[in-house]
Amino acid sequence: MSTEIIGIAAGVCTAISLLPQLIKIIREKEARDISLFYLLILFAGLALWIWYGVLRDDIPIIGTNIVSIILNIAIIIFGIRYKRKSS
Amino acid sequence: MSTEIIGIAAGVCTAISLLPQLIKIIREKEARDISLFYLLILFAGLALWIWYGVLRDDIPIIGTNIVSIILNIAIIIFGIRYKRKSS
Repeated sequence: MSTEIIGIAAGVCTAISLLPQLIKIIREKEARDISLFYLLILFAGLALWIWYGVLRDDIPIIGTNIVSIILNIAIIIFGIRYKRKSS
Repeated sequence: MSTEIIGIAAGVCTAISLLPQLIKIIREKEARDISLFYLLILFAGLALWIWYGVLRDDIPIIGTNIVSIILNIAIIIFGIRYKRKSS
């Protein structure tokens, strides 16, 4: 149980660390500094973590990486939208 | 074994996604866009993942998050150095 809490706290912190990129891109409506290549690598990594969590039956990994991947997808969507506008 | 490979692949991808921030800060010698607050939250998250990996005896989580936390520490060190210079 306390192990799970540490896992959830870990995942909440790493998910939160995606927020400044999302906030910046929505505020500035500009995506020149955003690398879609690395966002897609991060997407692959988060999807693999979810898959790994399912294989290990590890709820903190699954849950927190689902939150992270949703934030990552939002950054990708805004990134594509604002890259188009600025080009 | 194949589960471990998925975990390692996941961790390699999420570690790689820290690289653009590190490369950018070293190239531009400028850290105005870097939020130390969020880098410290990410540091806490990665440290908790390592702790979680130790508790779960999970080698992919431990190994890949050690790589990530080294990259994160490098970003923090350069961030503090270049924030000082630019202020």
